Amino acid sequence: MSKTFEKLQPYLEKSMALQTARTLFEWDDQTTAPFEAAENTSKVVGILSDEYMKSLINDDVRKLLKKLQEEKEHKELTDTEKAIVKELAKTYEQLESIPPAEYRTFNELTSVSSRKWVKAKKDNNYEDFAPYLQKIIDFKKKFARYRVKGNKKPYEVLLGDFDECFMIEDLDIFFDKIKKEMIPLLKEVSKKAETIDKSYNYLNYDITKQKEFCKYLSGYLGFDFNKGVIAESAHPFTLQMHNHDVRITSHYYEDNLESAMFSIIHESGHAIYEMNIDDSITQTLVGGGASMGMHESQSRFYENIIGRSRDFWEPIYGKLIDTYPENLKNITLDHFIKGINKAAPNLIRTEADELSYCIHIIIRYEIEKMIFNDEITVDDLPKVWNQKYQEYMGITPSNDSDGVLQDTHWSWGEFGYFPSYAIGTAVASQIYACMKEKMPLEQYLREGNLMPIREFLRDSIHKYGATKNTNEILQDVCGEKFNADYYVNYLKEKYVALYEL
Amino acid sequence: MSKTFEKLQPYLEKSMALQTARTLFEWDDQTTAPFEAAENTSKVVGILSDEYMKSLINDDVRKLLKKLQEEKEHKELTDTEKAIVKELAKTYEQLESIPPAEYRTFNELTSVSSRKWVKAKKDNNYEDFAPYLQKIIDFKKKFARYRVKGNKKPYEVLLGDFDECFMIEDLDIFFDKIKKEMIPLLKEVSKKAETIDKSYNYLNYDITKQKEFCKYLSGYLGFDFNKGVIAESAHPFTLQMHNHDVRITSHYYEDNLESAMFSIIHESGHAIYEMNIDDSITQTLVGGGASMGMHESQSRFYENIIGRSRDFWEPIYGKLIDTYPENLKNITLDHFIKGINKAAPNLIRTEADELSYCIHIIIRYEIEKMIFNDEITVDDLPKVWNQKYQEYMGITPSNDSDGVLQDTHWSWGEFGYFPSYAIGTAVASQIYACMKEKMPLEQYLREGNLMPIREFLRDSIHKYGATKNTNEILQDVCGEKFNADYYVNYLKEKYVALYEL
Repeated sequence: MSKTFEKLQPYLEKSMALQTARTLFEWDDQTTAPFEAAENTSKVVGILSDEYMKSLINDDVRKLLKKLQEEKEHKELTDTEKAIVKELAKTYEQLESIPPAEYRTFNELTSVSSRKWVKAKKDNNYEDFAPYLQKIIDFKKKFARYRVKGNKKPYEVLLGDFDECFMIEDLDIFFDKIKKEMIPLLKEVSKKAETIDKSYNYLNYDITKQKEFCKYLSGYLGFDFNKGVIAESAHPFTLQMHNHDVRITSHYYEDNLESAMFSIIHESGHAIYEMNIDDSITQTLVGGGASMGMHESQSRFYENIIGRSRDFWEPIYGKLIDTYPENLKNITLDHFIKGINKAAPNLIRTEADELSYCIHIIIRYEIEKMIFNDEITVDDLPKVWNQKYQEYMGITPSNDSDGVLQDTHWSWGEFGYFPSYAIGTAVASQIYACMKEKMPLEQYLREGNLMPIREFLRDSIHKYGATKNTNEILQDVCGEKFNADYYVNYLKEKYVALYEL
Repeated sequence: MSKTFEKLQPYLEKSMALQTARTLFEWDDQTTAPFEAAENTSKVVGILSDEYMKSLINDDVRKLLKKLQEEKEHKELTDTEKAIVKELAKTYEQLESIPPAEYRTFNELTSVSSRKWVKAKKDNNYEDFAPYLQKIIDFKKKFARYRVKGNKKPYEVLLGDFDECFMIEDLDIFFDKIKKEMIPLLKEVSKKAETIDKSYNYLNYDITKQKEFCKYLSGYLGFDFNKGVIAESAHPFTLQMHNHDVRITSHYYEDNLESAMFSIIHESGHAIYEMNIDDSITQTLVGGGASMGMHESQSRFYENIIGRSRDFWEPIYGKLIDTYPENLKNITLDHFIKGINKAAPNLIRTEADELSYCIHIIIRYEIEKMIFNDEITVDDLPKVWNQKYQEYMGITPSNDSDGVLQDTHWSWGEFGYFPSYAIGTAVASQIYACMKEKMPLEQYLREGNLMPIREFLRDSIHKYGATKNTNEILQDVCGEKFNADYYVNYLKEKYVALYEL
């Protein structure tokens, strides 16, 4: 190991430990902590965030980083070490210009505000959440402005935190294509979809049984319960302490069969990614997924491309019927597949079909751009939200819980995250196209043999963690960079076949 | 605020945050983390422990502490600040002489070993746990030797960590009295107790219903679910993040009604103590209970003095019958009270009746003394354990899970803790005696009105946190220091009445 890199190790380890502690507090806050804990605990989180920042942003690390970036030293590094140095430089770009006191206050704020969001959503009361959202946005604008360089816009700084390969220009082209292709297709499909009876999905489904079936599903996909746990939270999410401790959550509704199942499949996709990251890089700066775009590609690959396919359900649909014979005994597999792929304009992103999903993302993307271009205020948000839904989906939320309050991301300060879902969705289609050329994927699914799929993803994507970015991975796996055409083609093919258009 | 004390604040806050993080990892390890997480996570815990140590043990804090201990500065402090300075000095005594690298390795070790203990207990395999126990004991001996001063014995250093008021001399006198008084009484009582039919306790008790009833019990005692949560773990315990986040666990057995109920009452006693600590001192060095002895006095007051009394059950026994009518409809309240107070020689500390309980503690105390006097080795432990049970209880464990492996404490490195249970038990009797003079305690219980009891304990004990020690509290509440006679009298009176001796 290079001597300079060796000197860096204790700093990296310390920051890893503090970051892992913050992660655990986040998990605990969402799944366990009592309601009144937030205020005292946010002090703790604030201090840990401050220490995290100081563990990396200091003169010693700055000098070591500079040295490691210089050509002579850089040549001596292994590929993994080079990737760690690159990641450290990114962290510097993210944190160095932010005054520590502001960073700490911001972290205290988001430690409280995610809880305020839960309550506001439950109470359908946007006004209770608005002051927190205002503070979060003010901070994010300030932080983005500290960091912005050259011609970049503040919003691009935030986008880059989730996927460095996609800036406003790339996203505008991508989303214009989606709008042009998908909105007309959604209209056409949803007219035909009206005839599909999906009432079976909204009967009474015992929650204990749902939990059991979801656990089974997760294990079937490859979630390793020796390295992970499933819990409940208001908003499903995945989080990793390291590659031997990956955690997912779901929420369960008694009157909706699909909701928890597809949440669990989605989160299991994230979890399998993290569990497959190589032991040699876990607990380092490159020990997580490549990008949020890449991460969402894995969750949405499992959720949609696999999870909503007939081949996937063929070997296991019988088990679902056996779990709920009273509700499902007369629902054929074909009927069920049409049901889980029923496309129609809708209000809730996490419950959306594949065809309308990206429209939800486009709406959020456009709103976030407006926020960071100072074109709208926090007070305008519910109105703008509803207008966009009317414009693109043709429907308007009847309340803010189903509207502007539906997602948790802003309460954590995660502006710029949403596009990752759309990027991931498109990346998943691209990977799917090249996987089909390399293996009898449908046959594996019909045989209930998911291991070759998991191994392919592990060996070509997961194990590398963040040592490569999204486009580098796509180039290596598929021989070309991001190309949204695969996505458009995938959806067209799927829906034309399903709805006999 | 004194300027010197003000300068100390950031160090105290940082150590509080790191300590709270360690607490959360402990909670998570016992209740949530997946099995294979331990190894990677122990690295994180090791680093956080190291940082915790460094946050307090450094030249800046050393100088500030010294200054605050000098007369002139000391006079300027408030009582709370004085208590914090005293507590900081104690922390210095505990940590200063231990080499940081050893402290970190020890914390990594206990982060893994508690998990090894769970497995060894489950598998009834002492040999799997012995190497870990050996390492833990080696560390504890070394640490104690670093700290020992004057004529003190190494074991006394450890005892002092849990209650500064009780050294070997005090405990020897206390335990000799117990042995002399209790062993003959236990023999007499257990002969009579044989006629009490307790078979109802070992019928089938649905675990979901047990959890519901335990939750009810906990709330009835005053556990505030806005400030606390209940979870499950192999060994019941209580732990606090701060006074607005206090957590307890229990374990549930389908074939034992009492076990979870009295665990929950016990842990609720600890929790109520922590929840009642004043807002002004939570998250400071004096923000926890006064001592482990004092803490156990509160848990055992609720568990035994209140929880096993007829008055306590009078208003709520009907609810228990309603929960399990098939098992309890023919069991009268008087029968139930005799059942929950059935005394007999037994093997499991946490399941023991009040009369035999302290004998369990004496056995552990004597063994710990032998360990730290280098009189026995780790290999001797199962044999010595079994011999002691035969000597004092007249019975021998048939396996190590019911013997030397039964308690979790040693796997955490907590040698010197056990006497706290006996101290607490005796302290509880002393407080009970003076409470009865000050309020119609039995009447409150019969009315199902626990608030005046809780308020008395809050105002005279809980709110002070660790600003007073055990004897100071007893002096203020009862007008005298620790006096074990109350305990002996309480047990004699109770059992003479119950068994008509």
